[in-house]
Amino acid sequence: MQKECCDILVIGGGPSGGVCALTAKMNNPDKKIIILREHEKQLVPCSIPYVFGNTLGSVDNGIAPCGIPDGMDIEASVGTVKDIDVKNKIAYYNDIQLSFDKLVFATGSTPFVHESLQHSLTLDGVFTVAKNVEHIRKLKDYAHSKQNILIVGSGFIGIEIAMEFAEIGKNVTVVGGSEFILNRAFDSDIAQKAQAIVEEAGVTYVGSDRVVEIVDKNGDNIVNAVKLKSGKIIDTDVVILATGYKPNTALAQKVGISLGHFGGIWVDDYMRTENQDIFAVGDCTARRGFISKAPSRVMLASTSTAEARVAGSSIYGIKYLKGMSGTISIFSTKIGDTVFASAGVTANKAEAKTNTSMIIGSFEGMNRHPGKMPNTRKQYVKLIVSRYSGQIVGGQVIGGDEAGEIVNLIGNIIESGKSVYSVMSMQVATQPMLTAAPTNYPLIMAAIMAIKEMES
Amino acid sequence: MQKECCDILVIGGGPSGGVCALTAKMNNPDKKIIILREHEKQLVPCSIPYVFGNTLGSVDNGIAPCGIPDGMDIEASVGTVKDIDVKNKIAYYNDIQLSFDKLVFATGSTPFVHESLQHSLTLDGVFTVAKNVEHIRKLKDYAHSKQNILIVGSGFIGIEIAMEFAEIGKNVTVVGGSEFILNRAFDSDIAQKAQAIVEEAGVTYVGSDRVVEIVDKNGDNIVNAVKLKSGKIIDTDVVILATGYKPNTALAQKVGISLGHFGGIWVDDYMRTENQDIFAVGDCTARRGFISKAPSRVMLASTSTAEARVAGSSIYGIKYLKGMSGTISIFSTKIGDTVFASAGVTANKAEAKTNTSMIIGSFEGMNRHPGKMPNTRKQYVKLIVSRYSGQIVGGQVIGGDEAGEIVNLIGNIIESGKSVYSVMSMQVATQPMLTAAPTNYPLIMAAIMAIKEMES
Repeated sequence: MQKECCDILVIGGGPSGGVCALTAKMNNPDKKIIILREHEKQLVPCSIPYVFGNTLGSVDNGIAPCGIPDGMDIEASVGTVKDIDVKNKIAYYNDIQLSFDKLVFATGSTPFVHESLQHSLTLDGVFTVAKNVEHIRKLKDYAHSKQNILIVGSGFIGIEIAMEFAEIGKNVTVVGGSEFILNRAFDSDIAQKAQAIVEEAGVTYVGSDRVVEIVDKNGDNIVNAVKLKSGKIIDTDVVILATGYKPNTALAQKVGISLGHFGGIWVDDYMRTENQDIFAVGDCTARRGFISKAPSRVMLASTSTAEARVAGSSIYGIKYLKGMSGTISIFSTKIGDTVFASAGVTANKAEAKTNTSMIIGSFEGMNRHPGKMPNTRKQYVKLIVSRYSGQIVGGQVIGGDEAGEIVNLIGNIIESGKSVYSVMSMQVATQPMLTAAPTNYPLIMAAIMAIKEMES
Repeated sequence: MQKECCDILVIGGGPSGGVCALTAKMNNPDKKIIILREHEKQLVPCSIPYVFGNTLGSVDNGIAPCGIPDGMDIEASVGTVKDIDVKNKIAYYNDIQLSFDKLVFATGSTPFVHESLQHSLTLDGVFTVAKNVEHIRKLKDYAHSKQNILIVGSGFIGIEIAMEFAEIGKNVTVVGGSEFILNRAFDSDIAQKAQAIVEEAGVTYVGSDRVVEIVDKNGDNIVNAVKLKSGKIIDTDVVILATGYKPNTALAQKVGISLGHFGGIWVDDYMRTENQDIFAVGDCTARRGFISKAPSRVMLASTSTAEARVAGSSIYGIKYLKGMSGTISIFSTKIGDTVFASAGVTANKAEAKTNTSMIIGSFEGMNRHPGKMPNTRKQYVKLIVSRYSGQIVGGQVIGGDEAGEIVNLIGNIIESGKSVYSVMSMQVATQPMLTAAPTNYPLIMAAIMAIKEMES
């Protein structure tokens, strides 16, 4: 067995692993850093839905660049760590015995499949959305050869995949566990609007029911239907399980790293595990909500990279005393031509999750001004506000592509603990071709509507 | 003379007057509010450039809605205030003697024309860009009947007008006083890129020279050339003076309201004049820079409306103890298909204006991810950062339409006094169809580049 050594070993080459290695290198240019990934080629995680239809066109177009820019003195290898001697700081992979000083788990997540459906994963035509090039290629080839596709799960991944398949003429059904799609990120008033676009595109949505059995009627190991809790049978050629992900912590558990809730690795705000020389970042960690401080299952590459930057700036001494105070749950997606975006808590869960009395401020305006400008369309902003402090704890946006960045402004406002009064008097750039009018900028107007409600 | 009375009188019906009246009404529903505007119809100020070409197509399409939504109990009248008895709180307009309790000046700005050129304003074919429907209609009709158009001034208005006329086939020349266009809002590296697009569109830019004389060769009172400081003569059929605006304070001066710098009405952070019952908002006020705290000539409808919201929330007791701490100078524009946006101080002026040592962090990435997504284009973010505190004091963005809202995120970061470390670890939503990659979100990467520079 070959012996090697490094200062920092990062296990996992997804977005959080790559960003953590780069940040650690910037902060510690003299340290030797090795990043180990499982596969030579990796997909950009959130691009996966778009490889199935016309948007990206091919699986190859979703493959991520290696992530380590040229000239960065970071060693990137392909290999699977089989064991770690935590006490003596040695990792074993391929035929190498690798000594490290600091270790980062960035092992990501794997598809979550309900226990009752797991045995059906061996049927032909049943797929998870595993973040693996060959798996996705197989799923795409299989689905393209069939006509009827059933997706289990109505979160972002499920809906984005449904829209891609519908666009190329497939007969698509989505079975979601909730009355409306995207129900974790949006209140039902907004989710309903997204759902209308999805249905308009030809996707059938079966809400408030769930798949209890994946059926192989002919006993030939090929799926041909699903059975719902209601007893209903839906025939299908393909079943795609987009039912979320779970932290990939098999290795961490094996070597005795403490876990937190939902099976994630326990970390403090600087992404340190209970062992101060071992960090964890990304989907493999146990997260909590930024507002609620309650355990959270939210998994987002953007939040993962924020954690990775915190870890990379904290690994040999903390550079910035703030750390991660929880996930803001900040999302966006485009359904048809309309963008739906959300940050923070939703109104329907806010009171229960936070034990705070909440109020809503909302405003619908136009995304250009005056209204006669070309390509003008509606822009709607809804803010969820703590009744007593006036702090903005959540926001949802419907609009054109600009909504994808407006939600980031809202996220920053939430992260700063700003109140509706602060937003009421904030300065923004407005321009006829690009934004709403200064007199009716929906985010500011929604804050004003919330003030009105607070004071009434 | 008819006698009337009200609680709050707002003089001026532009964006700041309208927003001030609405905000004051929301905060004081029982108060009687009158808003007086000079003309029945008003243009949306920043839409003016777009009425000249194809974008809005007609002057009528640039006319603002009245600004007072139905059902708001605010009286809007057309009239010019001729005098005010400040001591007895009476305003005189039309044939009405109007008693008020609180007064707001929202009298806006009028075109600034250099003294040496003022006498030429009587020539046929010489126009300012006055914010007046009939004036703009006359300018448009005249210019459309000619072929050669010369614009004096290379700020946003001048350049936006130039592009509109170039698009409909006019022969357009811009004479700017600076080496590059848009030199107040952008550093030269960015201004150069904007200028290349303008020149590509067929506009001739004459920089670092200035018009010293407007020429009527034939003595027939019709302009046919301009003479530059260098001695050069440029023939033209139309001269448009887009050389900025000055506060419209004739009435305020007449009635003894104290002025500040640059001829604007002196106001405190709550938009109160020296008389605590009289407020002023918008372009008629004396502004200072948010970062530099130095006098500023920046005039923006968006900043004006922020001031109006502060005044409207402070008029009968202050609702929010923050006020306006100066203009952030936050702009955006679209030149061709590219958006240029800026917030805060520019690098070329930052050190002189603030007496602080500055560093730059910049990053160019893509505005979608992965790079194979449709409509992917470059996105560049440059941050200007205080070397010692790490505070972000300015930012400039080049990109697609999304840059119009990214600059608002940067503005919020500046307004919050946040540091590059805070931005390094901020959470954003990223989505293939809408934003840059989480691993390379240019704003965060620019902050990281600045940290690298600070620590080196």
